[in-house]
Amino acid sequence: MIKFVSISKIMDKRTIIGIDPGTRLLGFGVIDVIGGKPVFVDMGVLDLRKDTDAYAKLRQIYETVSQVCKTYHGTEMALESPFYGKNAQVVLKLGRAQGAAMIAALENGIDTVREYAPREAKQAITGNGAASKEQVCTMLQKTLDISLEAEHLDATDALAIAMCH
Amino acid sequence: MIKFVSISKIMDKRTIIGIDPGTRLLGFGVIDVIGGKPVFVDMGVLDLRKDTDAYAKLRQIYETVSQVCKTYHGTEMALESPFYGKNAQVVLKLGRAQGAAMIAALENGIDTVREYAPREAKQAITGNGAASKEQVCTMLQKTLDISLEAEHLDATDALAIAMCH
Repeated sequence: MIKFVSISKIMDKRTIIGIDPGTRLLGFGVIDVIGGKPVFVDMGVLDLRKDTDAYAKLRQIYETVSQVCKTYHGTEMALESPFYGKNAQVVLKLGRAQGAAMIAALENGIDTVREYAPREAKQAITGNGAASKEQVCTMLQKTLDISLEAEHLDATDALAIAMCH
Repeated sequence: MIKFVSISKIMDKRTIIGIDPGTRLLGFGVIDVIGGKPVFVDMGVLDLRKDTDAYAKLRQIYETVSQVCKTYHGTEMALESPFYGKNAQVVLKLGRAQGAAMIAALENGIDTVREYAPREAKQAITGNGAASKEQVCTMLQKTLDISLEAEHLDATDALAIAMCH
């Protein structure tokens, strides 16, 4: 066994995959946590509106989340859990999307999946559980030193969920 | 390419995996359809009551359904879709269980997953959508020429779903 001493003395690197599973769009956000500090890695959106077949949608979710986990060597997953106010049909679909994302995590060696309500994420990032998307965006840009464009807006929830975790 | 002539002239063999995903128990039923006739293969129950962690439950569902698909070379899956009368928390969990079962099907080369409501299955098997579990059981035993014991009761819904398909 080879022992090594790292220059930075930071041995704990975690990679958090944040997933915001919707029935129309699935957002993802990836951050590394290096020595306790978050570093932005990637974010994006999977557009599910083209597929009408529920099974094809689920396949896309599973394959996309698998690819994100594999590409960035995710160690933990943070999932946005839905509001319960929505109707049962929507909740069932969200449950399926969550299930597919969780199995993708499982198949890629991620053994911790935690769920956060949208307001928990907002609270953690802005200090206000009822913050607007714009306020969350502003704080994410400051904290992670990135600039978010309009086309990234759908993925900011996922990034916020990863940061919250 | 080798051409062959089979004795039975039955080239279409389908294997249908019926899944009744619950939050406490998951039932499965497997039938072969050989030349249009259903033949009983297997049935069983996965007890999920021991696990308290949602992620561990989902992992068990995924692994069990995968194993059933692999063992019996499933070609199609029939899923029981839940009542919508249940509360949102239960529907979300059922959605996740369905998602895990669907991904297991996908990963095992099954490209058709269909959903049936409990009353569709009862209607198809007994001719009455409001039939009791006992009536469904009696018809399944007759049609498939099997004898069902009390301990199989939890899996009869899954078998009924497979037959309905």
